[in-house]
Amino acid sequence: MTLTREKTLADRVRNDFPILHQEVNGKPLVYLDNAATSQKPLLVLNTLREYYEQYNSNVHRGVHTLSAKATDAYEAARDKVAAFVNAASRQEIVFTRNASEAINLVAYSWGSTLQPGDEIILSVMEHHSNLIPWQLLAQRSGAVLKFVELTPDEEFDLEHFKSLICEKTKLVATVHVSNTLGCINPVKEITAIAHQHGVKVLIDACQSIPHMPIDVQQIDCDWLVASGHKMCAPTGIGFLYGKLDLLRSMPPFLGGGEMIADVFLDHATYADLPNKFEAGTPAIAEAIALGAAVDYLSAIGMENIYAYEAELTAYLWEQLGQIPEIHTYGPKPKVAGLGRAALAAFTAGEVHPHDLSTILDQAGVAIRAGHHCTQPLHRHLSVQSTARASLSFYNTRAEIDIFITALQEAVEFFGSIFS
Amino acid sequence: MTLTREKTLADRVRNDFPILHQEVNGKPLVYLDNAATSQKPLLVLNTLREYYEQYNSNVHRGVHTLSAKATDAYEAARDKVAAFVNAASRQEIVFTRNASEAINLVAYSWGSTLQPGDEIILSVMEHHSNLIPWQLLAQRSGAVLKFVELTPDEEFDLEHFKSLICEKTKLVATVHVSNTLGCINPVKEITAIAHQHGVKVLIDACQSIPHMPIDVQQIDCDWLVASGHKMCAPTGIGFLYGKLDLLRSMPPFLGGGEMIADVFLDHATYADLPNKFEAGTPAIAEAIALGAAVDYLSAIGMENIYAYEAELTAYLWEQLGQIPEIHTYGPKPKVAGLGRAALAAFTAGEVHPHDLSTILDQAGVAIRAGHHCTQPLHRHLSVQSTARASLSFYNTRAEIDIFITALQEAVEFFGSIFS
Repeated sequence: MTLTREKTLADRVRNDFPILHQEVNGKPLVYLDNAATSQKPLLVLNTLREYYEQYNSNVHRGVHTLSAKATDAYEAARDKVAAFVNAASRQEIVFTRNASEAINLVAYSWGSTLQPGDEIILSVMEHHSNLIPWQLLAQRSGAVLKFVELTPDEEFDLEHFKSLICEKTKLVATVHVSNTLGCINPVKEITAIAHQHGVKVLIDACQSIPHMPIDVQQIDCDWLVASGHKMCAPTGIGFLYGKLDLLRSMPPFLGGGEMIADVFLDHATYADLPNKFEAGTPAIAEAIALGAAVDYLSAIGMENIYAYEAELTAYLWEQLGQIPEIHTYGPKPKVAGLGRAALAAFTAGEVHPHDLSTILDQAGVAIRAGHHCTQPLHRHLSVQSTARASLSFYNTRAEIDIFITALQEAVEFFGSIFS
Repeated sequence: MTLTREKTLADRVRNDFPILHQEVNGKPLVYLDNAATSQKPLLVLNTLREYYEQYNSNVHRGVHTLSAKATDAYEAARDKVAAFVNAASRQEIVFTRNASEAINLVAYSWGSTLQPGDEIILSVMEHHSNLIPWQLLAQRSGAVLKFVELTPDEEFDLEHFKSLICEKTKLVATVHVSNTLGCINPVKEITAIAHQHGVKVLIDACQSIPHMPIDVQQIDCDWLVASGHKMCAPTGIGFLYGKLDLLRSMPPFLGGGEMIADVFLDHATYADLPNKFEAGTPAIAEAIALGAAVDYLSAIGMENIYAYEAELTAYLWEQLGQIPEIHTYGPKPKVAGLGRAALAAFTAGEVHPHDLSTILDQAGVAIRAGHHCTQPLHRHLSVQSTARASLSFYNTRAEIDIFITALQEAVEFFGSIFS
């Protein structure tokens, strides 16, 4: 008699990801660096290849067949992204290189209206991409940055946020899911509170959009940014969502072709949305492939991805809890792996996280070590760097077992050195 | 007895380009829209695919095997681009999405030092990408734009340029090869004159770098920009070359990860070049594939490409000269097709260029019609739009024959309507 186990989501999708089927250092690759970048399914790779082999052409400007095909596919990708985040209009989606560029776009364009003394509220857990653009804006404008601190559970402190917001506040910009703490911030409540004060809200969804359904109308945020490469799409593409009237009211950021209407030597008028913010030849193939990534994720269903990753998260934390030397950061999972993201940043006593990552790499396990682009948060947590294992829906319990075994061995090995 | 013809460059390379081997509207594709974007050889497509199937990972931040491989390949691509333009240092190459972004980078960063009354010299033939960023900068800074006009042969008027430059001039930004006129501007002389006045020079090399050797040290320009997608590389990648000391002296443009050294909540220090100008996860696959494109072009040899395209240019202009209704723009080829770029912008009497392009598309011939992102130049030439056939080294005389035959038929067809 054979026991037949129900196929997990990962079982069903792993063959879609060619990169996962390789050995690293003589061991099967266990890729647990998904918060840095996700892997890409065949649908995305084939979409890229088809574009270049069949209809590569510049968009919007040509009337010949290839150009029309490329334009249609590029704009169809915008429709897909708009539907994926439930934007009210396709014109609310602006393609950018990455989330960083999207945030800089808002900081340069909308930010150009800020006055000295205006306040911007961020949190101490922001990725550098949602910190440096506002520091640079503060330098240009004289605006002041304020920072929401953490609760004892190392989550976004909503009460502290309420105490910071005032009539000088013009913007709240915060991460949806922390790439280090893994906490899921209450972005709907944050937005509601901000809007009561007439304050705009920007949400960095890089670490949420690959893992859970995102509905910009439900959140009601004014802007939301994401990176394609973290959500199964190629590198070189991301997007800015913005409310239509708000984007309309914002001055241009980058100048060039595509974003203009009538151009004279001394002045120009600008194109309607979304072209106004897409200067120059866009990342055409990458946008089309982002559309394919969205198709792929939607076919699986973001609810299913979220549910499966919650199971994995519960298992990951349970296993990490078996190693006494491991200290984790951010909130523990609440019921059944829910209440936090599918990643774990951790330290192991005196062992340098880079050494942990190096030794795990010998076992074929790819994790990240460092400051994860959140240096201020690490300083706030009084730790110089952390190791981080971050999951995706194509990861398995068996991979977590391999990771935990290798981690245990590493901790024991370094323990014997330090003891 | 059979005559064996020597294989041309195009004969040797056409099999490298899968997209060329297809029918459009039942006719073999004749792709003459290379100034809008080039097609991509298999080496580039395979490099992209290998990246995603074998070592996709985020760069610079990881110590695991995949991340190290991705970082090495990404930085090797920078070395290749640096060598391709003969930069003095790899740190002088900054990856951007496209040439437009590279120009905007300079306009926002270096441009932040401009004062009211400072002057910027452009030419009337600039692409919108080398015009709008300076218009926006002029609005921010109070700087004034001046424009070099055309000689009677519709080339860059060096004497007029000399008359414009003065002690108020801070920058000359000009295209190397006009995407509409096809003239090759004397960038070395322009730079020498500018430097005599202590004026910085930015060269837009989008239309030159796919077609001829480029040596930034020989030109001696301060900055040079190019788009990958016009030089056999993917969309979503371009680069800025800048002299090392100059780039060092420029403040950051986009803020985010990658471009920082030490980050505190209220301030940050920035990474050394070139990272200082590369915020967020870069277009990793695209940069690596740009490196492959550079390998591909270098293996053919840019001198060989230039020589072959000159032959094609001579033939194209000879054939166009056989159709009396055709009016061409820009200089005629001088000796043996030399002295201008391998493209022809033209009109045919009263026939709308879009109609020409549409009817040529029925014959499988892809040309562009419109303002080619040079509206002010078109106004200067007193024409609303032009048709444009633009060549690459994979085009053949036979394709020019198909184009000319189809064009002749179109002109006759419309002639019978208008007469």
